Amino acid sequence: MVSNSTDASATTSGCPWSARECELLAVTLKLLQQHGYERLTVEAVATEAKASKSTMYRRWPSKADLVLAAFIEGTRESAVPPRTGSLRGDLLAIGAAVRAQGREHTGTMRAVLNEMSRSEALSAAMQEKFVYHRTVVIQEVLGEAVARGEIRAEAINPEIWDVLPGYLVFRSLVADRPPTEETVRALVDEVLLPSLTRDMTSG
Amino acid sequence: MVSNSTDASATTSGCPWSARECELLAVTLKLLQQHGYERLTVEAVATEAKASKSTMYRRWPSKADLVLAAFIEGTRESAVPPRTGSLRGDLLAIGAAVRAQGREHTGTMRAVLNEMSRSEALSAAMQEKFVYHRTVVIQEVLGEAVARGEIRAEAINPEIWDVLPGYLVFRSLVADRPPTEETVRALVDEVLLPSLTRDMTSG
Repeated sequence: MVSNSTDASATTSGCPWSARECELLAVTLKLLQQHGYERLTVEAVATEAKASKSTMYRRWPSKADLVLAAFIEGTRESAVPPRTGSLRGDLLAIGAAVRAQGREHTGTMRAVLNEMSRSEALSAAMQEKFVYHRTVVIQEVLGEAVARGEIRAEAINPEIWDVLPGYLVFRSLVADRPPTEETVRALVDEVLLPSLTRDMTSG
Repeated sequence: MVSNSTDASATTSGCPWSARECELLAVTLKLLQQHGYERLTVEAVATEAKASKSTMYRRWPSKADLVLAAFIEGTRESAVPPRTGSLRGDLLAIGAAVRAQGREHTGTMRAVLNEMSRSEALSAAMQEKFVYHRTVVIQEVLGEAVARGEIRAEAINPEIWDVLPGYLVFRSLVADRPPTEETVRALVDEVLLPSLTRDMTSG
C-alpha cells in the first residue's frame, strides 16, 4: 500500500475535477459541516448547487463516494510539502495542517471511517487518494532533510513514517482531546526529532 | 480530561458488573464481531442470552451504551500495567495488547466513534471508562521506569503520553494498515525510547 518512491507531480497537481465539479464538492463539504454525514443527502447537494440528481450520481455513484471526494478536495492544500527550509519547520507545518483538518472535519472523518468498514471500494479509494498522498509529502520532507544533512537516511523507517499525522488524527478523532499547537510542538521537538536524530551506532 | 495522578486501584479492579451482566456483555461482543454494529439489535442479544428486553434496557438504555460497555469489558485485560520489569518490555506488551484489540474490534470501534459524534454522553463515557484507564496504565509504566532509574521524570510530557496506543489505534482504525509486531518494535525502539531517553541538557 505504501510506496517508497517519491513522485513530486502527484502532490503538486491541482484539482482533478472540472470547475463545476469542484463547486459541487464545495457545496457538499459546506452541507456536511452544517448538518453532518447522516443528515446529508445527495438530493440536498443537488438542490443547493442547482444541479440535477443524475449529474451528481453520474460522477459519484453513492453518498459515500461523494463525501470522500469532498473530503479529499477540502484537505488538498495539505497534499503539498510545506518547504520551510528546515525539517523542524516542515514537521510543524504538516502538524498544523493536520490539526486544522481535524478541527474542521471530525464528524465527516468519523462517518467516512464507519462507511469504510462496509465498503472495500471506499476503503481502497481512501488509501489511494488520501493516505498515499500524505505518505508522499512526508517522504519528500524527510528526503529533503537528508539532502540538507539534517538527518541520516537510515533514521527513516517507512513502517512508521506517519506517526506525526497518525497521532494527531487519533487525538482529533478517537481521543476527543483535539491537539493544540503545544501538542504539535511537543510531538515534533520531544518525539520526532529525537527519533530522527538518534545515535544509530549504539543499540 | 487527563489527570496526572496515578490510582492503582482504578486499574486493578475486576469487572464492575454482576456475573449475569458480564454474560450479557460477552454475548453482545460475540454478536458484534459476527454481524457488525449496524445489524446488531438489543433484541437479538436478549434472545441469544435468554434475557428479557426490559432487563437489557434497564442496564443499558440504548444500543450505543450496550456496545460501549461490551467493548470496555472486552478490552479490560489491557487496563492493567504489564510489569515486565523493564520500560522496553512494558511498552512492547502495551503495544501488543493494543494491536490485538485493534484486530478484534475495528468495526466496533469505528461504529462507537461514529456514535460519539452524535452523543455527548457516549463520548464522555468513552473518555471516562476507557481512555482514562489507559492513561493510568501508561503513567504507571512510566513512573516505574523513573523509579528504576531508566528515564528521567522530566522526559515525560503528559500532553503526548498516548503516542504509543494512539498511533497503533490510528493504524488499525484509520490507515487500514493494521500494525504488525515490527510496527510495535519500531515504534518502541526507534521513536519512544529515543524520545524518553533523549539528552535534555541541549535544546
